[in-house]
Amino acid sequence: MVIIQLNDRQMKIIEIVKEHEPITSEQIASMLNVTRATLRPDLAILTMTGILDARPKVGYFYAGIDENNIISKKLKSKKVSEIMSIPVLLTEETTVYNAIVTMFLEDVGSIYITNNGYLSGVVSRKDLLKSTIGGIDINKIPVGMIMTRMPNIVLANPNDSISEAVKKIIDHEVDSIPVVEIELKNEKEYYKVIGRISKTNIARLFVELCGE
Amino acid sequence: MVIIQLNDRQMKIIEIVKEHEPITSEQIASMLNVTRATLRPDLAILTMTGILDARPKVGYFYAGIDENNIISKKLKSKKVSEIMSIPVLLTEETTVYNAIVTMFLEDVGSIYITNNGYLSGVVSRKDLLKSTIGGIDINKIPVGMIMTRMPNIVLANPNDSISEAVKKIIDHEVDSIPVVEIELKNEKEYYKVIGRISKTNIARLFVELCGE
Repeated sequence: MVIIQLNDRQMKIIEIVKEHEPITSEQIASMLNVTRATLRPDLAILTMTGILDARPKVGYFYAGIDENNIISKKLKSKKVSEIMSIPVLLTEETTVYNAIVTMFLEDVGSIYITNNGYLSGVVSRKDLLKSTIGGIDINKIPVGMIMTRMPNIVLANPNDSISEAVKKIIDHEVDSIPVVEIELKNEKEYYKVIGRISKTNIARLFVELCGE
Repeated sequence: MVIIQLNDRQMKIIEIVKEHEPITSEQIASMLNVTRATLRPDLAILTMTGILDARPKVGYFYAGIDENNIISKKLKSKKVSEIMSIPVLLTEETTVYNAIVTMFLEDVGSIYITNNGYLSGVVSRKDLLKSTIGGIDINKIPVGMIMTRMPNIVLANPNDSISEAVKKIIDHEVDSIPVVEIELKNEKEYYKVIGRISKTNIARLFVELCGE
């Protein structure tokens, strides 16, 4: 794939086709006061890019592709499973103190909490900080008491596009979201945590796309 | 700008030019067993995109642009000043407790600390969390005692490209970096904080580029 910058005449052609579709190359040429031969490479590029659609004996149509959905296409094609990290998991019984220690040792911004192997909650740096100044005994209180509990957790699927996951992170103002696989038991859904997608993953992808 | 998918013949032309540059369109045509007229739109696209360079009476050269630096160009063209947020500032004398309260009220991941109006340190959620479990009296200890102090702080310039700033965030494993303007006084540099660039800004830019 390559990016090209359209020239002024090509931009004008797009405007003309948008307004007068279907329109023949002769009609476009006469509106621009140029010959059909002059227009040929412009029309070739505009149809190759998918901006214009050409139908034999009818003319050119505007296909609805514009500048704004270029980068978008590339970014939307990547999947959560391609960039997710390994999740850090603890059980509900872990003390708040040990959760804090784990957070420092693993250097993550959030820890996912499980019950019987399935996701039951999420605890963030913010949750832990709040609990340390709240006057509770962090050596006794289990993390299960201060975590955000299911179903109030935003989840990602490994096959989601990265753009969907990032949108969830932004909209719900969280640092990361657990990537889960759903298991069905007795008609109830359980979530197995298989990954973690964070703002750091996004920033890394950004650096990668910049080719650095 | 538009993205186009090159066809097989265009890819072959690139390979031929890479290997035999400078090469004329006649030579390319004969190697591909096609007429020069057939090649004309292909060569037009390849030179328009900047992949090939054409010099009159010499021939075609490979200009060194390939698929990998397409998105990169767009991302590198954005500047820090275009997406930075308002910084949250406190002075060194503020207590750790008040810094924590500010962090929650402003909902930021790091606070920049100033002395006489200039940047002297940075305090992150991690720093604050560490201090709350460290057995110090957070109501008495000033934030200046626990912050990361200049010159051990990574800085961004408003005119830096976003890709440079993101690279710093990743390489130094921080959540945000202060955007500063340098002031010179008695031959010493002082930094005025004018913005904040965080992983959240990057994630937001990502969503915006995805057009959502």
